[in-house]
Amino acid sequence: MKLLEDRIRKDGIVREGNVLKVDSFINHQMDISLFEEMAKEWKRRFAGKPINKILTIEASGIGIAAVAAREFGVPVVFAKKSMSINLDHDNYCTKIQSFTHGRVYDVIVSKKFLSAEDHVLIIDDFLANGCALIGLLDLVEAAGATVEGIGIAIEKGFQKGGEIIRGKGIQLESLAIVESMGTDGSIVFRE
Amino acid sequence: MKLLEDRIRKDGIVREGNVLKVDSFINHQMDISLFEEMAKEWKRRFAGKPINKILTIEASGIGIAAVAAREFGVPVVFAKKSMSINLDHDNYCTKIQSFTHGRVYDVIVSKKFLSAEDHVLIIDDFLANGCALIGLLDLVEAAGATVEGIGIAIEKGFQKGGEIIRGKGIQLESLAIVESMGTDGSIVFRE
Repeated sequence: MKLLEDRIRKDGIVREGNVLKVDSFINHQMDISLFEEMAKEWKRRFAGKPINKILTIEASGIGIAAVAAREFGVPVVFAKKSMSINLDHDNYCTKIQSFTHGRVYDVIVSKKFLSAEDHVLIIDDFLANGCALIGLLDLVEAAGATVEGIGIAIEKGFQKGGEIIRGKGIQLESLAIVESMGTDGSIVFRE
Repeated sequence: MKLLEDRIRKDGIVREGNVLKVDSFINHQMDISLFEEMAKEWKRRFAGKPINKILTIEASGIGIAAVAAREFGVPVVFAKKSMSINLDHDNYCTKIQSFTHGRVYDVIVSKKFLSAEDHVLIIDDFLANGCALIGLLDLVEAAGATVEGIGIAIEKGFQKGGEIIRGKGIQLESLAIVESMGTDGSIVFRE
């Protein structure tokens, strides 16, 4: 998606260790107008799919998912990263390794909000090694729900996550796929 | 706001210890159509204010803030609850006590995204003792920004947060104010 690629070139910051910071428009400050255009693009790419729910994971997926949900006319469920005393104990649970935070999270979704009747679109901001997505797929599978597709804002094409997910036969729509990043700040996107 | 009060009566669950669970439409599963109506109501109540940014805190404020931001035509910044290695160290920082999770969080906003030029609307899902809001007000003050108002979905009117915030002369617009909750599940809203 050219609009997103252009924005990443303009405002994304490349850091050592293949880190791409997009915190000025995606995951700390959020450009909601951009999210709306991304939502429309996913709506186009997933046209005709019987999606009745969007699933994401806290925290940085929530804003994008909320705006996408408006476009699709469906509710969002966000998976939670740790047990809160306000949550029921009747949850689907998995573990997700976060390389960004250097730890493993317990991730849960209440059984009330994901069931065998659900046709789920998973939305998240980043795809790198795929740990978060595989965790979300575990939760959907545990619920007996159907994954209709996955929408990602930015995929790091040089990490293995995209290949793993596509290998499962799931429709994965990443709106910008970074093929490589240079130490000079240059970014090459996949065609 | 009658729509929200009616929804709380219908789908909210009262638990022992004055806990009100609204996880089927606010803070685990999110009803985006409801959020849009809430956003319109805040737009009406804050009409004429020169709001150029919405500030919220992860995680459950983000969805509501994103939908409200669309209505106001401004970006969202969400305060983060712990230090990520992807964040700059150049942050405004405060501490917030969470009674729900029984711990104290470091909460940060990058100095890049909050400045003396900003006129901020703070949005969050719940107001009880006011700890989270006071932390967000600390961050806004540290940045030299102006608070134009605070929009809350559900205020627990029997806790002290609302009184503290209104005592500061800030325009606080809670769309539903719970005056009391009964052990039979009954809920009384403030007129």
